[in-house]
Amino acid sequence: MKNSALLTDLYELTMMQGYFYKQNNPDVVFEMFFRRNPFKGGYSVFAGLEDLLRRIENLSFSPEDIEYLRGTGIFRDSFLNYLKNFRFTGDLYAMDEGTIVFPSEPLITVKANLIEAQLIESMLLNTINYQTLIATKSSRIYTASGRAQIMEFGLRRAQGIDGALSASRAAYIGGAAATSNTMAGKQFGIPITGTMAHSWVMSFDSELDAFRKYAELYPEKVILLIDTYETLGCGIENAITVGKELQAEGRNFGVRLDSGDLQYLSEKVRKRLDEAGLKDAFIAVSNDLNEDIIRQLVRDEAPIDSWGVGTQLVTGGEDSSLTGVYKLVARLQGNIMMPTIKLSDNPEKSTNPGFKQVFRFYDAHNAPLGDLMSFYGDEIDAEKSHRFNHPMFKYKSYRSTNHNSVKPMLIKRLDGGKICCELPSIHDIRQNVIADVKKLDSTFKRLLNPHIYKVSLSDSLAELKFRMLDERSEKI
Amino acid sequence: MKNSALLTDLYELTMMQGYFYKQNNPDVVFEMFFRRNPFKGGYSVFAGLEDLLRRIENLSFSPEDIEYLRGTGIFRDSFLNYLKNFRFTGDLYAMDEGTIVFPSEPLITVKANLIEAQLIESMLLNTINYQTLIATKSSRIYTASGRAQIMEFGLRRAQGIDGALSASRAAYIGGAAATSNTMAGKQFGIPITGTMAHSWVMSFDSELDAFRKYAELYPEKVILLIDTYETLGCGIENAITVGKELQAEGRNFGVRLDSGDLQYLSEKVRKRLDEAGLKDAFIAVSNDLNEDIIRQLVRDEAPIDSWGVGTQLVTGGEDSSLTGVYKLVARLQGNIMMPTIKLSDNPEKSTNPGFKQVFRFYDAHNAPLGDLMSFYGDEIDAEKSHRFNHPMFKYKSYRSTNHNSVKPMLIKRLDGGKICCELPSIHDIRQNVIADVKKLDSTFKRLLNPHIYKVSLSDSLAELKFRMLDERSEKI
Repeated sequence: MKNSALLTDLYELTMMQGYFYKQNNPDVVFEMFFRRNPFKGGYSVFAGLEDLLRRIENLSFSPEDIEYLRGTGIFRDSFLNYLKNFRFTGDLYAMDEGTIVFPSEPLITVKANLIEAQLIESMLLNTINYQTLIATKSSRIYTASGRAQIMEFGLRRAQGIDGALSASRAAYIGGAAATSNTMAGKQFGIPITGTMAHSWVMSFDSELDAFRKYAELYPEKVILLIDTYETLGCGIENAITVGKELQAEGRNFGVRLDSGDLQYLSEKVRKRLDEAGLKDAFIAVSNDLNEDIIRQLVRDEAPIDSWGVGTQLVTGGEDSSLTGVYKLVARLQGNIMMPTIKLSDNPEKSTNPGFKQVFRFYDAHNAPLGDLMSFYGDEIDAEKSHRFNHPMFKYKSYRSTNHNSVKPMLIKRLDGGKICCELPSIHDIRQNVIADVKKLDSTFKRLLNPHIYKVSLSDSLAELKFRMLDERSEKI
Repeated sequence: MKNSALLTDLYELTMMQGYFYKQNNPDVVFEMFFRRNPFKGGYSVFAGLEDLLRRIENLSFSPEDIEYLRGTGIFRDSFLNYLKNFRFTGDLYAMDEGTIVFPSEPLITVKANLIEAQLIESMLLNTINYQTLIATKSSRIYTASGRAQIMEFGLRRAQGIDGALSASRAAYIGGAAATSNTMAGKQFGIPITGTMAHSWVMSFDSELDAFRKYAELYPEKVILLIDTYETLGCGIENAITVGKELQAEGRNFGVRLDSGDLQYLSEKVRKRLDEAGLKDAFIAVSNDLNEDIIRQLVRDEAPIDSWGVGTQLVTGGEDSSLTGVYKLVARLQGNIMMPTIKLSDNPEKSTNPGFKQVFRFYDAHNAPLGDLMSFYGDEIDAEKSHRFNHPMFKYKSYRSTNHNSVKPMLIKRLDGGKICCELPSIHDIRQNVIADVKKLDSTFKRLLNPHIYKVSLSDSLAELKFRMLDERSEKI
């Protein structure tokens, strides 16, 4: 089911049939980009590419899919026959999975005939929008924790089964250390982790018995949940009793707080553990955490070692979708791939025309300075200074002079519909994300009111865009 | 993969192994309930039951699942052998899918041995939390539109593939008329719908040509997207040209607005259509809609006939998860199913003990008045008056006297792990939701600051709960 081409909006199929019968099927270029960083943040983390490439490579309509479409009465036989053998045969360019990305620049560029390029739109956006949202959220949470251990606990609050699985993957890429989702552990090789539920504690005759039985069974990984009855009463005292028994065997343990004021409780619990001679015991917390709450606790020096984050990490919380879109930017007319532009009553919805490359400019420490969009195939000489033109206001520009290197970001990933690149492990992707986010200037990482990273137009691209806008306004 | 029992939090499995080796596997009762209505609303719509029942009925560990668990080093052979033949053999009680539900009352009650009841927690919550969230959002949007046509367009912004499919199903149950998600159409029999994308318009040499070609191909269902270049300029004028050609053939059409000020544009567009003699032409709108925006437009009498809603309908927007939890409420000790209670540093997180039934009290017009929780098996005489006790404050209660009928809400759905009830079609579920929401007093349907629907405790349940709280506080 996962690779069924039927996972698409109906209008893609009706448009495809339109292109098919009107013999309007030129080669075209579509771009996927997003319009604003989620969570009012200063950057995003591109994720979902491997899943996308595998889905596109295996895309087809099953006989049942074809019969379903026939039954709708909307589609004609010759078009349905065409769909029977449908395969995506185009090219796809994309940034590396895990790249730090910014609004309005292409993360993915699709070059294919119009029918094929149109079909994959909904599925491409579904895959990339969600995983990028969650990898970004995870990176924010990981950064806010001071690069501490983040455990992703979101399965029960995720938006569906696949939501949970994709979220575990994307959260790991963004910096989470482990997931509670056992299936995600199996499927992606992510470390799995867990503690105990209140029901464990309640299913024994006493809390002490529940703690002791758990420690007998899992002596290496004991995290005792101490808030079932009273955290600072029986909870911490029973944990200390069991902790001392473990200590006598040369083992360590931890406690988990899942309710109440985490600052107050963690300080009290730390004090009791220290008084009891259990200085190595660690404190894990959970309970509707997000990056703002975590940052507050870290700044106020709450003695917390590890963070369990569920709902907000796997759904994005208040910002539950990335605003990614997929827009036509060029169309073959005669022998020329002619740039196209979409205007709109919302000016920020106007597109940047043409088949483009994104060049990232770096300083001597390999920290990104700014991104320059130009035409695909353009060469950028890193030795020279370059003008960065504002994408909307013609009179605004600056020159980059302090860069040390320049890197083209979009690389071919599908050639004639087949994967033509190495697919790095998610462990490598995660390490790169962590290293790149560390290098990113801290002004872009502020949780509130971050500095805006500049994504600009090259002289040639700016010239084309503003000329097309002028031509359009003359027509009206 | 969908029915793999591995789709669970690791701690369920480590707890299960604990129960297995500690020979602590009594029959228990768990309850699924949620703590607050999403979207600051006054009610929720229970959804996801059919998927849940099918998943539980087919739950098992594959040989690869077992090998994965073995490789983690956490599990012992005899427990893994037990998992090889694992099946859920317990009973499950639930409200009808599509029931209007309220915080703190059980939507689902699971009666099984502890190991089996524990395993299904994560998957049960994943399924019910998400679909209930979306059915509720859909009901709010449908109600805000004045029960107009809602088209669900969310695939590209949904949280994963399964997120999209479940969302289409739940949105339909809540009141949406159709989906753009073709796969959801096939899988669930939901009506499918769609218009055209900006790329269609841009892929022809002129907007007029694009409109005309579309109308030639789909003369019955023409919805022209008029904001690619200029809505009130070429957009509406080209649409009128094609609309008049259709009118001459005796056909109708519509236009879609996807950007800008929808109040202003819909009024101007309506005026132009009417002036052109196209009074039957309809206006569809989209662009980040939610129930608040729709209600505003409806109250201000924007001439809009149909609403395309994507992101916020399938993700919940700012409220991206239901706070559903799964709590132990009783445990067999000797021959007695002893009620259990969970306290917490957050008082509202304390649970209501025991295996319960929910009785809904109705007035003479079959509108619900209030819900009373009592013990499962209790009889409630509809002829008599009953005391409704506040679930947290002992001194607060009232008597129901004006009720006409009383209905027990929880019905057995799984018997020994097998589905033992009829599964109504989603079309029937949807009709019931629409009818029930219509009957619900409008004070509970206010989008902002709704009246709080009362979910109370019977005398016997209140007596037990407050006694258990007293006993607990004496212990400390």
